[in-house]
Amino acid sequence: METLPDKTVERLSQYRRSLNNQLAKGKEHIFSHEIANLLHITSVQVRRDIMLIGYSGTLRKGYDIKELVHLIGVILDTDQGQKIAVIGMGNIGKGFIHYLYEKRSKLKIVAAFDINPEKIDKTYADVYCYHLDKLEEIIQNENIKIGIITTPPLVAPEIANKLVNAGIKGILNYTPKPLSVPDDVYLEEYDMITSLEKVAYFVKEK
Amino acid sequence: METLPDKTVERLSQYRRSLNNQLAKGKEHIFSHEIANLLHITSVQVRRDIMLIGYSGTLRKGYDIKELVHLIGVILDTDQGQKIAVIGMGNIGKGFIHYLYEKRSKLKIVAAFDINPEKIDKTYADVYCYHLDKLEEIIQNENIKIGIITTPPLVAPEIANKLVNAGIKGILNYTPKPLSVPDDVYLEEYDMITSLEKVAYFVKEK
Repeated sequence: METLPDKTVERLSQYRRSLNNQLAKGKEHIFSHEIANLLHITSVQVRRDIMLIGYSGTLRKGYDIKELVHLIGVILDTDQGQKIAVIGMGNIGKGFIHYLYEKRSKLKIVAAFDINPEKIDKTYADVYCYHLDKLEEIIQNENIKIGIITTPPLVAPEIANKLVNAGIKGILNYTPKPLSVPDDVYLEEYDMITSLEKVAYFVKEK
Repeated sequence: METLPDKTVERLSQYRRSLNNQLAKGKEHIFSHEIANLLHITSVQVRRDIMLIGYSGTLRKGYDIKELVHLIGVILDTDQGQKIAVIGMGNIGKGFIHYLYEKRSKLKIVAAFDINPEKIDKTYADVYCYHLDKLEEIIQNENIKIGIITTPPLVAPEIANKLVNAGIKGILNYTPKPLSVPDDVYLEEYDMITSLEKVAYFVKEK
């Protein structure tokens, strides 16, 4: 299969979350317009995405939820899971570690980094926190390919460079500082204020 | 002006972030394709969004960055700012408080809520943490219209109901539990795993 567009991958992840929730409620089949309602998008969009991954439902019953969740898993996950490093053990860094720990996801945070002596050599939900000086060494030894940056914004570019030099192929930048990386590294930037500004705009417009 | 589409508002927030960054670098004008490159979207998209808010640049110089940032501010912000409550003072709740505190945003978290006695009656970056029992009272007295839910997922639906009953008009759900709210309440749901699954997919495909 060809590499899917960014936004499709994002929606597949959201579909899976909603579908698992429906499964937990005992639902077995679902129509595209029901998925669309759950996610506040159009059913045309849902059908297009699901067609892109080569799946189709039946007219009478819609999609088989279990099959669809399985197929999304085949596309998004790897059998052996993927290793992640978190750089910056402030609230957000710790939040990610606890979140993935409870979720028992195939995405595993296997190392954390900080420069604060009170955090270094401690373990957070089974994740060991190293001094930032060990970044390259641990990432190479552990063959980690994904890094989450949750440091203060000012140092984010320097951290991104180190991650790239160490062989990281995907970065999730959770700081408000925009980064640039080489073409062969995938960069996803998320600023917490954007979600909030969206809510605030619609509240203001009401 | 008519209410803008969700995704346009999201992008306007992202444009502002990037534009402020360019201003800080001493840049005064910018072309749509430059904004597009910074955000990994098409320049057609950028031009369409900026046309929607009634702004246009010049062919020779592009957009005036300061003017555009100002206009986005007029659209997204309110003069008096907007008040926000955070429910759940775990890592993510604290992360939001510190983030907005440092940012000196017009969006102000004015109250936090938890049920943990160790957190109640403490202050986090000037934000007082109340017992959850006081939720309705404080939200009504303070006239808070926006709530961020960062509780454990299981209790998120109950919290959302309380927020709606107290008069909240916009909810940012930061838990992985999908919520439903009345039509007159704007709900934005963000799952940290989605950003991460996107990065993981592209790393896997490389």
